[in-house]
Amino acid sequence: MTSAAFDVLGIGNAIVDVISRADDSFLGTHALTKGSMMLIDEARAEALYAAMGSGIEVSGGSCGNTMAGVASFGGRGAYIGKVRNDQLGAVFGHDIKAIGVSFETALATTGPSTARCLILVTPDAQRTMSTYLGACTGLGPNDIDIARIGSAQVTYVEGYLWDAPEAKKAVLKAFDAAHAAGRQVSITLSDSFCVGRYRDEFRTLIRDKVDILFANEDEIKSLYQVDTFEKALEAARAENKICALTRSEKGSMIVKGSETHAVPAAPVAKVVDTTGAGDLYAAGFLFGYTHGKPLAECARLGGIAAAEVISHVGARPERALKDLV
Amino acid sequence: MTSAAFDVLGIGNAIVDVISRADDSFLGTHALTKGSMMLIDEARAEALYAAMGSGIEVSGGSCGNTMAGVASFGGRGAYIGKVRNDQLGAVFGHDIKAIGVSFETALATTGPSTARCLILVTPDAQRTMSTYLGACTGLGPNDIDIARIGSAQVTYVEGYLWDAPEAKKAVLKAFDAAHAAGRQVSITLSDSFCVGRYRDEFRTLIRDKVDILFANEDEIKSLYQVDTFEKALEAARAENKICALTRSEKGSMIVKGSETHAVPAAPVAKVVDTTGAGDLYAAGFLFGYTHGKPLAECARLGGIAAAEVISHVGARPERALKDLV
Repeated sequence: MTSAAFDVLGIGNAIVDVISRADDSFLGTHALTKGSMMLIDEARAEALYAAMGSGIEVSGGSCGNTMAGVASFGGRGAYIGKVRNDQLGAVFGHDIKAIGVSFETALATTGPSTARCLILVTPDAQRTMSTYLGACTGLGPNDIDIARIGSAQVTYVEGYLWDAPEAKKAVLKAFDAAHAAGRQVSITLSDSFCVGRYRDEFRTLIRDKVDILFANEDEIKSLYQVDTFEKALEAARAENKICALTRSEKGSMIVKGSETHAVPAAPVAKVVDTTGAGDLYAAGFLFGYTHGKPLAECARLGGIAAAEVISHVGARPERALKDLV
Repeated sequence: MTSAAFDVLGIGNAIVDVISRADDSFLGTHALTKGSMMLIDEARAEALYAAMGSGIEVSGGSCGNTMAGVASFGGRGAYIGKVRNDQLGAVFGHDIKAIGVSFETALATTGPSTARCLILVTPDAQRTMSTYLGACTGLGPNDIDIARIGSAQVTYVEGYLWDAPEAKKAVLKAFDAAHAAGRQVSITLSDSFCVGRYRDEFRTLIRDKVDILFANEDEIKSLYQVDTFEKALEAARAENKICALTRSEKGSMIVKGSETHAVPAAPVAKVVDTTGAGDLYAAGFLFGYTHGKPLAECARLGGIAAAEVISHVGARPERALKDLV
């Protein structure tokens, strides 16, 4: 196996976030479930946007945020995701390259516009997301460069990709290419509703292909359809993979066969916006992992990154994460 | 004179800000003058954007920010400005309407794209702006609805409009319409370099048409080509108009003939980003003025609004200004 050009290569839905504040009654009026991610079509996106308050636009996408975190730690990252050749696509491409992540996926020149995620932040700092996938649905196996995948220590993907059938095929191609090159692959389950949509596929995938699994408490309980975190933890342990399970202010638990590490959360003065917490946890963990750190230290780095991102509005780090460790 | 539908109607360059952090050496490398606004063409905008770090996109434009401030105080505002029917134009239009400002200017359907202002915030909280005017150059007299102008107590414009020849004609049409309806008109000088470009026109305009003038220390000294603030203040006094002169942390001075009011600045815990300070001062002042407040109280409201906006990144208020007074 040759030395790796990249620490982490991420594949995800390339999305520009539109972040606005809202109160609980707005969520009720628009039938939004607090804390969840819901897929919406373009007409619904336009109607919801028209009803929302003024916003800020900022590059996002779960995996894009993770790659921003890896780069912020000083890691070498690459990203694969699909935007259109429109203004928001230019914003996404600029931002991910500006932070030092290699991004060479061909732009869509026809079809739906660049994806947007309408994020409503309520006074309790929770975020509720409505995503119009747009150009992301055009990501497919042709966007996967086998050599590029083979040049990354870990290929990391978001479960959300299962919402676009061609993107799922791209992931499977990438996973096979990574393993053929002697590399490792990782997935985040993304969202408990996403797990509900693709539970059986995810369980098969984890058993057969995944080396490192990320999930929060709701997601892992949904995956194994159990009612306590402890049962979910034991089911995850039985996979005999590295499973990093996050529990918000309770920190995270890492299991790998008989190994168990409980790592407390990093302190946060004030939680402002929880958007990106899981994405940045994965960033810290994978940065540590690809730099040869022990699992407990990987989890600690994940916690530091998550703490930074929830202390301000927006899902990408504002401070250089390498300065925080 | 009939009662006014709007307190303030603003006319300005409708711009989406792209805000990024930069250090002083970046300004040097790219020949940017700290604290100034420079006009750039599309090619330069693309080159500078490519060199900048990742950013956030947020609706801006000097007068747009002022109108956001008026609305945040609870004032009734209208805005006239030109964007294209592109994604950033949709963002601008959404944001200004979402805060309750009436915005009905026809979108450009051909020609240059929506204007962008690349704002670099240095560690000293100063902002350096490079503006691609784009669709703003399409604003002209046809965009001025005489009846709408007549329905606002004060029509307020930014000096920056002089950079687009047709926009200047639009302003002159609006000023005449306002006076014909028995209303008042106001202008901000915008920027000392802008004053340098249009000094003679501005002096004639102020003498012949303006009722309320906004300027900071550099701008008013440049207007009258004097070397001290005291000399500039006396020259402004001789106009026999309301002149609101801002001096950053020294507060503001209001002169109107023999009347003089020196009003201290509102306290700020930490200055984060000075973008929008002058815009929000004008918002507070004009809100007070159109609600019958004495001049010193207008200046105090201006100071409160300016203090809010410089305490965070971005040029529009994050907190409801009506809650701060």
